[in-house]
Amino acid sequence: MKKLINAPDAVLSDALRGVQAAHGDRLRVSFDPAYVVRSDAPVQGKVGIISGGGSGHEPMHGGFVGPGMLDGACPGEVFTSPTPDQMIEATKAVDGGAGVLHVVKNYTGDVMNFDMAAELGRGENIEVETVLTNDDVAVEDSLYTAGRRGVGVTVLIEKICGGAAEDGRSLQEVAELGRRANANGRSMGMALTPCITPASGEPSFELGDDEVEIGIGIHGEPGRFREQLGPASQVAERLMAPILDDLPFSSGDRVLAFVNGMGGTPLLELYVMYAEVARVAGERGIQLERNLIGNYITSLEMQGCSITLLKLDDELLRYWDAPVNTPALRWGA
Amino acid sequence: MKKLINAPDAVLSDALRGVQAAHGDRLRVSFDPAYVVRSDAPVQGKVGIISGGGSGHEPMHGGFVGPGMLDGACPGEVFTSPTPDQMIEATKAVDGGAGVLHVVKNYTGDVMNFDMAAELGRGENIEVETVLTNDDVAVEDSLYTAGRRGVGVTVLIEKICGGAAEDGRSLQEVAELGRRANANGRSMGMALTPCITPASGEPSFELGDDEVEIGIGIHGEPGRFREQLGPASQVAERLMAPILDDLPFSSGDRVLAFVNGMGGTPLLELYVMYAEVARVAGERGIQLERNLIGNYITSLEMQGCSITLLKLDDELLRYWDAPVNTPALRWGA
Repeated sequence: MKKLINAPDAVLSDALRGVQAAHGDRLRVSFDPAYVVRSDAPVQGKVGIISGGGSGHEPMHGGFVGPGMLDGACPGEVFTSPTPDQMIEATKAVDGGAGVLHVVKNYTGDVMNFDMAAELGRGENIEVETVLTNDDVAVEDSLYTAGRRGVGVTVLIEKICGGAAEDGRSLQEVAELGRRANANGRSMGMALTPCITPASGEPSFELGDDEVEIGIGIHGEPGRFREQLGPASQVAERLMAPILDDLPFSSGDRVLAFVNGMGGTPLLELYVMYAEVARVAGERGIQLERNLIGNYITSLEMQGCSITLLKLDDELLRYWDAPVNTPALRWGA
Repeated sequence: MKKLINAPDAVLSDALRGVQAAHGDRLRVSFDPAYVVRSDAPVQGKVGIISGGGSGHEPMHGGFVGPGMLDGACPGEVFTSPTPDQMIEATKAVDGGAGVLHVVKNYTGDVMNFDMAAELGRGENIEVETVLTNDDVAVEDSLYTAGRRGVGVTVLIEKICGGAAEDGRSLQEVAELGRRANANGRSMGMALTPCITPASGEPSFELGDDEVEIGIGIHGEPGRFREQLGPASQVAERLMAPILDDLPFSSGDRVLAFVNGMGGTPLLELYVMYAEVARVAGERGIQLERNLIGNYITSLEMQGCSITLLKLDDELLRYWDAPVNTPALRWGA
């Protein structure tokens, strides 16, 4: 295992020291329990939004904390759910009196702990709503999951709900918007290589020299099948067909296309993939009105990519376009 | 070799198709000769700025084309210099009557071809100035290089010169600012793993299972030495000491610190590295006033990082902070 770390059990706290050193002007870092909130939290009268999950998926979620997106994020150890005490402390830190939204990816540990944190929040008279993301069409149940896994649409929902909260919308409205985005979003991923968690020191799975896993999860969970790596055009079709057929997306739909790198994939290859995604979408009469291309929801150094399509309406589009100012996503602000 | 491509000889044109599909609203793509310019080029009365180099270092340079940074970029094949005809066509496309700046990394092919393009430009009555970047302290001469290699400071110079050009500064002023930034910037990189170019299909070099190369170049060129991988704190010291001693940087200096990933390094690890960079800088009394952390000047899927320090003055800082709106760097606009 080759990693730029000091010790496997220090990765999270060391990375948080880096976040504090780099972004201390705009983020406030708590080490115990571990969470990050925007430095002006809580914003009075605004709905607060937090998310969280295991580390190793950076920039998700800590890189999305700031005006126009998340108010706070709770990082667990690598590929391990954060604990309810992290979540309740972050919830309290971002509560400006208008309630707090929890954006939760559908993994058993995350769901259970966020449920507990929501209960604890209500016990402290904080109104809490939850948006559960489950956009991964690859498999119905999986390691760590009952039902579909939450993946790429989470990034889009955090941006859209963040825009709506900044716009003064109510907790109910922001939560409904997030649920609508989840209902209109579908994803699927694939891997060229496994990743290695610092604690295990071993690859998360084995793949042959010319083999890929179609439908991979963001912790290396098994997907739908393995096959010999084909050209990018074939990879795009393998991922796009199940996504397009599932919602289903139809000719004339306005869509945001998100081509995400798993952490170790060169940006050059993600643009090759985007060309193929645009081609397949075009063949179905689907208009890609917005896009996001890069490493945003990653699996450490895994090579591979995922595709997320989100069917847009005017309101989703407006809040996607709204100003955002976070370490990883920044525009118009 | 596992890559998300259609064919080794189609990588560049396929990636450019992706750039056109994704960013056609803000960039204009020419396929033959290959270059990318901002869609409103040429901007009348503004100094035009172009750069270029081999592909495989994305987002550099194409991801930096847009208001506040580059007017155009010329991508060569992977790790191969672009040709003079790409450069002269891009130069003409961005010439708004105030002259054109070429930002050139110090590699023999790039230098020779940009020299030729500058001559061709003058032959067409376009005033051309060149800023040559050579900030890599690792080695004096190298594969492909007489003198030091141009690396991370190139990204910072493109941003700073772009800000100055947008502010209406003259070609001479923008060029002098770029040269001052180069004189005040120093970098060094390291690799955990090699990369594989699509054309060769073979690793660019071999490293032992626990070995790293200190002083690596962005094409896998040899560095200063190899050693067993130590903790991130040691890696930071290995890179920071030669950088700090070379300028030299002194107590009280105001510095921009750029921790760059080589393409395959998780962001989590780059933040661990930033914590160590901030620690070493602090021990020397150096104030990190700005930072940039992420994969910006890469070597395909290579794992590793580089550190660039730029000594700031008020003018460099002002143009670093100025609005920028490109696919890869965007703020305040």
